[in-house]
Amino acid sequence: MAFSNSSSPQTSQASSGRDVSGAIAALAARFGNHLITSQAVREQHAHTTSWIKPQPPDAVVMAQSTADIQDTVRICARHRVPVIPFGTGTSLEGQVNAPMGGISIDLREMNRILAVNAEDLDCVIEPGVTRKALNEHLRDQGLFFPIDPGADASLGGMAATRASGTNAVRYGTMRDNVLALKIVRGDGEIITTGTRARKSSAGYDLTHLFIGAEGTLGIICELTMRLRGIPQSIAGGSCSFATLRGACDATILAIQTGIPLARIELLNVEQVRACNIYSKLTLPETPLLLLEFHGTEADVAEQSRMFAEIARECGGGDFAWATRPEDRTRLWQARHDAYWAASALRPGIKAMSTDVCVPISRLAECLVATEEDIARSGLLAPIVGHVGDGNFHCLLLCDTDNPQEVERSEDFLHRLVERAHAMGGTCTGEHGIGQGKQKYLTPELGPEAVEAMRALKAALDPQGIFNPGKIVPVSL
Amino acid sequence: MAFSNSSSPQTSQASSGRDVSGAIAALAARFGNHLITSQAVREQHAHTTSWIKPQPPDAVVMAQSTADIQDTVRICARHRVPVIPFGTGTSLEGQVNAPMGGISIDLREMNRILAVNAEDLDCVIEPGVTRKALNEHLRDQGLFFPIDPGADASLGGMAATRASGTNAVRYGTMRDNVLALKIVRGDGEIITTGTRARKSSAGYDLTHLFIGAEGTLGIICELTMRLRGIPQSIAGGSCSFATLRGACDATILAIQTGIPLARIELLNVEQVRACNIYSKLTLPETPLLLLEFHGTEADVAEQSRMFAEIARECGGGDFAWATRPEDRTRLWQARHDAYWAASALRPGIKAMSTDVCVPISRLAECLVATEEDIARSGLLAPIVGHVGDGNFHCLLLCDTDNPQEVERSEDFLHRLVERAHAMGGTCTGEHGIGQGKQKYLTPELGPEAVEAMRALKAALDPQGIFNPGKIVPVSL
Repeated sequence: MAFSNSSSPQTSQASSGRDVSGAIAALAARFGNHLITSQAVREQHAHTTSWIKPQPPDAVVMAQSTADIQDTVRICARHRVPVIPFGTGTSLEGQVNAPMGGISIDLREMNRILAVNAEDLDCVIEPGVTRKALNEHLRDQGLFFPIDPGADASLGGMAATRASGTNAVRYGTMRDNVLALKIVRGDGEIITTGTRARKSSAGYDLTHLFIGAEGTLGIICELTMRLRGIPQSIAGGSCSFATLRGACDATILAIQTGIPLARIELLNVEQVRACNIYSKLTLPETPLLLLEFHGTEADVAEQSRMFAEIARECGGGDFAWATRPEDRTRLWQARHDAYWAASALRPGIKAMSTDVCVPISRLAECLVATEEDIARSGLLAPIVGHVGDGNFHCLLLCDTDNPQEVERSEDFLHRLVERAHAMGGTCTGEHGIGQGKQKYLTPELGPEAVEAMRALKAALDPQGIFNPGKIVPVSL
Repeated sequence: MAFSNSSSPQTSQASSGRDVSGAIAALAARFGNHLITSQAVREQHAHTTSWIKPQPPDAVVMAQSTADIQDTVRICARHRVPVIPFGTGTSLEGQVNAPMGGISIDLREMNRILAVNAEDLDCVIEPGVTRKALNEHLRDQGLFFPIDPGADASLGGMAATRASGTNAVRYGTMRDNVLALKIVRGDGEIITTGTRARKSSAGYDLTHLFIGAEGTLGIICELTMRLRGIPQSIAGGSCSFATLRGACDATILAIQTGIPLARIELLNVEQVRACNIYSKLTLPETPLLLLEFHGTEADVAEQSRMFAEIARECGGGDFAWATRPEDRTRLWQARHDAYWAASALRPGIKAMSTDVCVPISRLAECLVATEEDIARSGLLAPIVGHVGDGNFHCLLLCDTDNPQEVERSEDFLHRLVERAHAMGGTCTGEHGIGQGKQKYLTPELGPEAVEAMRALKAALDPQGIFNPGKIVPVSL
């Protein structure tokens, strides 16, 4: 239910015996000025990039160490007060909101890189390390961490939302790149989910249970992650297509042929136009694929030759190389700025990003039907997609002060998810469920899966203190 | 505790109000001659490749359909009788044993391939399909399923034990190749864990929770799995090394350099000798790497050129190509027969396979120390390893009728796991915990992780009917 908040801090507090003021007093005694209760800071910690109303926490703890997380959780548990982990606040579905009040635990200052094991291609980090900071640190060793969701998000947050982004077609998502986690559980003790071994069959896969759990089962205090060698050669560029279908067909063929594309991103005409304006580019205003190839020089040459051939078969134009690193950076910066470029099309309006993902054989059909739906609904919603994964985002520009437009938008969003479900897809490829997509979980997986999730939540968080009201609705 | 069975069917039945005869009567009424209670068939379903004593079920249901699984589970739940899924019986840690009696549900006849979506590189299958049957079915479409644990195991069983094998270094394990599962839960209803979308952030990762759960949380009745295109070109061969350390160093360098090896398997001297005898080969009797490269012709040539250079740096001999497909098949058949080759070194003795996995930077150290330990202990235990993953198996040939030898063997096994743990590794890379490795879970991950696993088991199987006594010990 966009716009409506299920409960205010006051009512939920009253009904559950929560003692927020007791918790804040205990936290103040423990943390001094690392506990912040100012309105401004509380509001910063309810920032979301969604339509959901910001719901600030009652206070914010600036954690410096695992011991700080443990003590915060212990104090919150004792007072039955929610605790909501916060990384950089770039989640998209209200994951950092505090619908029942409680304590936001800000992990940005837990940003130490604890170990880089170059020989094993792994590292151990604190959750507040951002992906750019990690890559900066790794560069001299010839290593990188491949997951790139656009925002310079914290890696703890990326694990918590099972993030992915432009490189996932080749390197996988957070699911594929986290080897082990340490988790602070409800009594403040620490669960270790795995070892540094590359693979293991030792019992239930706790690592993957916590990846994507959005902080609802415990708080990530340490991550062990896979790294990659920086490819010898990186090349990329753009390729225009007469039709969306042509661009999708080229994508499918490239994947089927086994070309190990590092990135393949689709921009529809509206989005190309928005990028041209915002990023001062002169891309041809037709459906466009942005590509990147990684490998040895010979690999990259072979991959791009093979792709060019496929593109021609599918009605693609010439491949426009971005050979100079600065041209490549400019192109990918424009891609990463797609959200802002779309937003700029309608000043004052914050774009709302959808996130469906379908089997790629259905992608063309899904995209074409969605473009038609947008036009028919009289909406403005440029489209950008991680098409190698079948995942795309409509950046919907809706004036939320206009009830008719909101109604048309909500109807469109509903049809979009229904369309993805009918094609064997999911409502969210990478943004998570948070608050915004809870209504889609049962239509997507059935009541039995949601019951299983509810049972897991109750098993690992019996007090219900971890980020309540996200993924599975709270039963009060 | 090898050799000792924690409880006999009789005592556990008496203590928990189980009604085995009531269950068998109800199953007989429902399944007719698809319910089998003969001693011979029950014993076949307790077959394990381990030291653990076979513990036959009270009866076997030959399931033909999901409805059969549902009804079996409902009847077992009503009578509080354990239900143990059975694929091909090739698991290695007692996963199909029935320590508390109960019903083995044999899924071999649920072997239909329900859909192959070539464009999406995925398929939907029943759990009894074996990997060879699937690959046979896919071949004409130019597709294959890459996970190859050696045995022609059922894919349901491979998912349940999070299997991997020789191709994991390139294609990942079952963890990376199952997109979604359907699971029969304790009341007979079905949990759908995911869609056909390539990636999703829709709630808790139920798919990965059931992969590797060894049938203890529910029974897999359908799998959606990723497929790959058969590579244009496959090449491989063997390379001898003066020392184990040299072979490990070559492996590490190849992985670090980013050579996308499809297979890299180590055989130590004992194992090469065993293979030469058993498979009538003439491999040089030194530490040996078996390799396979997949890609375009150019890729494969480039990869093997790069590897040859690395091998030379690490004291490797010339690369012996197996260019003809029949030579390649012969070499890999010998690798797959390593277990039987080792067993043949000591007729009448069944080899017991260990399964530690360590970060590859520690592999040489771990292997050398393990070889020394074997020699010092006066044991016979050829070693074969998926060294690209840091995973290796000692095929321990112990006369279990000789108590002194058993004691020395158990001490060795214990030291081996301790050594792996000290190096940041796991007790099991791919065989699972089953009955045999329960004692290592707490040393590996700590009591908090085991408590979490126990909570998950209680949440999803509150009656404790699903394969009890595996992964987490039963608390009676």
